[in-house]
Amino acid sequence: MTEPLEMQPLGGFLDALASSAPTPGGGSVAAMSGAMAAGLVSMVCALTKGKKQFAAIEEEVRSIHDRAEGLRRELQTLAEEDIEVFGRLSAAYKLPRTTEADAATRKAAIQQVTRQAAEVPLRTAQVTAAILPLCTALAPHVGRLIVSDIGVAALLARATVQSAILNIEINLAGLDDQLYVHETRARIADLAIGLSEEADGVVKIVRNRINQ
Amino acid sequence: MTEPLEMQPLGGFLDALASSAPTPGGGSVAAMSGAMAAGLVSMVCALTKGKKQFAAIEEEVRSIHDRAEGLRRELQTLAEEDIEVFGRLSAAYKLPRTTEADAATRKAAIQQVTRQAAEVPLRTAQVTAAILPLCTALAPHVGRLIVSDIGVAALLARATVQSAILNIEINLAGLDDQLYVHETRARIADLAIGLSEEADGVVKIVRNRINQ
Repeated sequence: MTEPLEMQPLGGFLDALASSAPTPGGGSVAAMSGAMAAGLVSMVCALTKGKKQFAAIEEEVRSIHDRAEGLRRELQTLAEEDIEVFGRLSAAYKLPRTTEADAATRKAAIQQVTRQAAEVPLRTAQVTAAILPLCTALAPHVGRLIVSDIGVAALLARATVQSAILNIEINLAGLDDQLYVHETRARIADLAIGLSEEADGVVKIVRNRINQ
Repeated sequence: MTEPLEMQPLGGFLDALASSAPTPGGGSVAAMSGAMAAGLVSMVCALTKGKKQFAAIEEEVRSIHDRAEGLRRELQTLAEEDIEVFGRLSAAYKLPRTTEADAATRKAAIQQVTRQAAEVPLRTAQVTAAILPLCTALAPHVGRLIVSDIGVAALLARATVQSAILNIEINLAGLDDQLYVHETRARIADLAIGLSEEADGVVKIVRNRINQ
């Protein structure tokens, strides 16, 4: 129905977000902020690669650059997927429930799509969490004038993972499959381990380098 | 030279961010993520206003909605301003420094524009910090299905303020005017007071409501 997120002008995206339209919502916003974090890492790599004074880290920077671009592409896809799965969820809720059989079909459809709706932020969180080690690797070595961009990437990546976790949890709250709920809560717990400390660590390096 | 940020398609914006092009960078990304946080608050207000079951908070929601839209507009403007001031800073660095007089003019210009470059993230931080009280006010009362969006708004707002602070600090590091540097550091300290706790408080309410 609407054009792909990537084609939407920023102003129009923000207006649609702020409106009562069902999408985009918090899921796409999380994926977008993760994509911006990955984009900042790529920018710093692009500004570091091929420069004589960074020859010693050239190979590592190239590999981090490829990784960051891969993560960014995944996050841009996840922003679209969040909108798509929301559409399927709305459709499932609109299924008829006049007969008992209809109601059972509708309930099963809602359960199935809610589970898919939990998977999108789960992948958003996992992909975005992979940005933080890239920040940790780059922060001590890149040019001092662009080191703040690595700090911003780490801060945004942390907020994105935390946001995606809330988006998973709100979907889990509607699920009957307690085994899946239990397993997914364990995955969330894994994602949260060391997350805050890792971002704090990057910011500490960045702040030391800014003030050195 | 380039089209305004608001007219740029999301995909193109992220590609430009990830490239070695000087803008957009961490400053615009921070303002954009603040704008997304404000947009989520507006969305939740738009989905709450005019509904019978929320009649008791109708007036407060209307006022929060107006406030959030005002903050969003300011942040969208700040994202553009960050690009514009970066252009002026690059131009100042390119001024001639062959004679002593030229070098002095260039240095003064760089100092002046660097101070302007610190003001943009300072305002980004101040405007975005004003989103958090709106989240605190809404989180206990809005519909349970959209409460996670308030959590995402609070998490993004915190990361935006923290990011903007790094962007202020990197500009302060280049300034000679120690009185201005001192005053601005005091403002940063004010902004940071209670910031993390305020966002944590919103997330706690959101999480309790998701799992209630």
